[in-house]
Amino acid sequence: MLHTTLAKAAAKLPLNPRVVAAQYAVRGLIPTRADEINKEIASGKGGYPFQSLVYCNIGNPQALKQPPLTFYRQVMSLVDSPFLLEDEVVVSRFPKDVVERAREYLKRIGPTATGAYTGSLGYDFAREAVAAYINERDGQATPLSTADGITLTDGASTGVRLLMQTLISGPSDGVMIPIPQYPAYTAQIALLGGVEAPYYLKEAEGWGVHAADLKATYDKCVNESKATPRLFVAINPGNPTGNVLERTVMEDIVRFCYDHNMVLLADEVYQVNIYAAGKKFTSFREVVLRMPEPYNKTMLVSLHSTSKGVIGECGRRGGYFEQMNLPADLHAELVKMCSINLCSNVNGQVMTALMCSPPAPGGESHASFTKEFADIFDGMKTRAAMLAAELNTVVGFSCQPVEGAMYAFPRLTLPAAYARHNDELNAKEGRKLSLDARWALELLESEGIVVVPGSGFGQEPGTLHFRTTILPPTEQMARVVKSIRTFQEGLYATYKD
Amino acid sequence: MLHTTLAKAAAKLPLNPRVVAAQYAVRGLIPTRADEINKEIASGKGGYPFQSLVYCNIGNPQALKQPPLTFYRQVMSLVDSPFLLEDEVVVSRFPKDVVERAREYLKRIGPTATGAYTGSLGYDFAREAVAAYINERDGQATPLSTADGITLTDGASTGVRLLMQTLISGPSDGVMIPIPQYPAYTAQIALLGGVEAPYYLKEAEGWGVHAADLKATYDKCVNESKATPRLFVAINPGNPTGNVLERTVMEDIVRFCYDHNMVLLADEVYQVNIYAAGKKFTSFREVVLRMPEPYNKTMLVSLHSTSKGVIGECGRRGGYFEQMNLPADLHAELVKMCSINLCSNVNGQVMTALMCSPPAPGGESHASFTKEFADIFDGMKTRAAMLAAELNTVVGFSCQPVEGAMYAFPRLTLPAAYARHNDELNAKEGRKLSLDARWALELLESEGIVVVPGSGFGQEPGTLHFRTTILPPTEQMARVVKSIRTFQEGLYATYKD
Repeated sequence: MLHTTLAKAAAKLPLNPRVVAAQYAVRGLIPTRADEINKEIASGKGGYPFQSLVYCNIGNPQALKQPPLTFYRQVMSLVDSPFLLEDEVVVSRFPKDVVERAREYLKRIGPTATGAYTGSLGYDFAREAVAAYINERDGQATPLSTADGITLTDGASTGVRLLMQTLISGPSDGVMIPIPQYPAYTAQIALLGGVEAPYYLKEAEGWGVHAADLKATYDKCVNESKATPRLFVAINPGNPTGNVLERTVMEDIVRFCYDHNMVLLADEVYQVNIYAAGKKFTSFREVVLRMPEPYNKTMLVSLHSTSKGVIGECGRRGGYFEQMNLPADLHAELVKMCSINLCSNVNGQVMTALMCSPPAPGGESHASFTKEFADIFDGMKTRAAMLAAELNTVVGFSCQPVEGAMYAFPRLTLPAAYARHNDELNAKEGRKLSLDARWALELLESEGIVVVPGSGFGQEPGTLHFRTTILPPTEQMARVVKSIRTFQEGLYATYKD
Repeated sequence: MLHTTLAKAAAKLPLNPRVVAAQYAVRGLIPTRADEINKEIASGKGGYPFQSLVYCNIGNPQALKQPPLTFYRQVMSLVDSPFLLEDEVVVSRFPKDVVERAREYLKRIGPTATGAYTGSLGYDFAREAVAAYINERDGQATPLSTADGITLTDGASTGVRLLMQTLISGPSDGVMIPIPQYPAYTAQIALLGGVEAPYYLKEAEGWGVHAADLKATYDKCVNESKATPRLFVAINPGNPTGNVLERTVMEDIVRFCYDHNMVLLADEVYQVNIYAAGKKFTSFREVVLRMPEPYNKTMLVSLHSTSKGVIGECGRRGGYFEQMNLPADLHAELVKMCSINLCSNVNGQVMTALMCSPPAPGGESHASFTKEFADIFDGMKTRAAMLAAELNTVVGFSCQPVEGAMYAFPRLTLPAAYARHNDELNAKEGRKLSLDARWALELLESEGIVVVPGSGFGQEPGTLHFRTTILPPTEQMARVVKSIRTFQEGLYATYKD
């Protein structure tokens, strides 16, 4: 017995180094510390100079009191409990178009089958709804989207994972990613042992893309990392940057992907979230299809999700990817990967269908839906403008316009004395917090505001940033700005160079 | 332009060989062909000697008309649309305990937040419900389960993926799996480039496990494959084998895992599905906790799901894993992996909580729930016994008792002339169908019955099997048995040695 115990104590259980290497800052150090503080406050401990936290680290609208769109929830409730439709009293309490929509979906699903696995790619009716939405959005660009190209997923993240896993075998494969980027991309690259090939967005030009940078990034990946880029990630509107890409830039990207035999992965989950005057959403699909031969044959996978937009149903884990021009073997492997997971969750699938087919004009719910939608959207738009303007008045901050998405990503200048303060603390604590992480941690501990340091998204060497959402309701947003200002002014007063 | 096009045509897009290698027979060749036939029949083409298919390939109860448990659906509908609780007329149509339960969950979730991301591990209230269920099930074995050890997942499959990914780095790491096994395991091993270390279940002994085999399997993996087994998979009740493990065997397994520093992955998703007289479910957790030092410190991850049991809510993708005795670094990596996916879907989480806390005695729903539950369970039990008995009367079949789970896995003997028939067809068609796959394909095409060949699960070399579910309703089950008998008798008449 003793022998066995010793043997076990000596044996170490090695972990997958790729898993250990993966990082996801949106739920990393700062939010983890925030959760601890939250528990301390709840249990009466702590003694912090605030009574509650404001979570600006994650795009999770309904956690910040954004209401759900009523029509969608009503339909989902009836689809989940088809027997409610047999109760005339219950039915009488729902708008007619809700009842009709639920009956329509149930006819396709089969009224006894709403809890069953679906096909590997999802319900046909939901995939058809997605295709119809895309056709409407893209102005009937030829060829039309069909359900064949649509795969329903548990949020957009699953689409990223499946596509990356199928294309990235290890250190000989690269992925071109924008910097700053949404860290799900770097996390998946790390998990697959692939190579990051970063192209830097130009902050001073509203986070634009330079075509010349793309070539340099590609060549560096090939020559220095000895890896061939297989995938090109474009995030539009940008996360965390909030920019909206110009069509000419999108055309540059498409040409570049085609010429270099890369799959273009278009993260378009914020396609509804565009606030800036004169800006509108253009899908990479439409750009590809309208380009001349051979660029209209560019391999494209585009992502969408029920988590963002105005719908904000993050927890449903609904979403889809549309594929275009993929080789047949890649498509077959993606289908097999979906089949190994059986199917995405059915509530996410129903919510995706609903997102793509809101109540029609003339129906009983149309007016109230339109009002709910506009109220949420207008609130985001107001706060996007307000937040960027306010942050630009804070000492040491410089914030590009929030044209779209749900975030501001201000640039942060800090006194050299504050950098020395961080070095000293790191030495004392035996850790290696980056300067922006230290700043975000101290902001959290002194003001109760939860943001994500720029290093979690990547940033030009020598620059510092942080990401904050535009989601807190207006009264909370005032506190956020005030708290950040107080903290930053105090910091500048304390750490004089 | 021409140059570019040629360059592209020449360039091949290489796929991840690990993805290409992964197989998942439950949705593989036979079900794929079945879907094609289904479409042909629906479009009036085909000319098959049957009007419809019976899908016996997958444990998907509600697709085969198994009704959902009403209480669970009622609560879920109200949680999804909290505003329904403000309508007294609607509320009056629901049982009181449904309304109370929905209010209780909403109080914990926050009534405006039912569509929001949850914490990475899931809702606290749901994790607490799981822990309470485990304590009740295991008779308060010490120490008690707490929510801390519970992670909610999108079905049990996600738990398998996360744990394997964290422990299996590549060809130096092995996974001990039973053969036959559920093919999600071999698929995940292939995706990670790990090594399968199979231990064969003894068919003639009701698919039992021999302790001596475990040592031989481990040593073979170390010596021949040069890989160290890190994980030990036990499936109880067995899939596809339908057996229920004896406690003494479970103790052997626990000791073996402890002595060899392996994490025991206990797939217990069929824990409610036990039909054989004198058999009952014993959890690996209870076995571990009741063993003497040091074996009560065995590293354990146990899986459960809303897809199976009597609940059958496959499409919700609900489930959990409980961990015990894991090293802190492994736990931390699992939490991080969950955070990269943000959270499992909220409807699956709610359904998991419900599965673990059915309506209490004395409540308005208790009697009807109990009756619904018993009707479903009794139907499964009857069909499990009937199916095994009937299959044992078919020429060339030998079927072990279906003690539990949802499947029969009969052994198949085929005339040598049929093997020659397969060789001839393979040569003609230029493919390499295994003999049992040919048999399942011809059964499908002549009788419309969809089963999975044994080679999809693994089987002792030289043996043949197929898996069929016990799920078709009684009248369909009669057709299944009759069709299989007709096919097999015809085959024996045609292919005489």
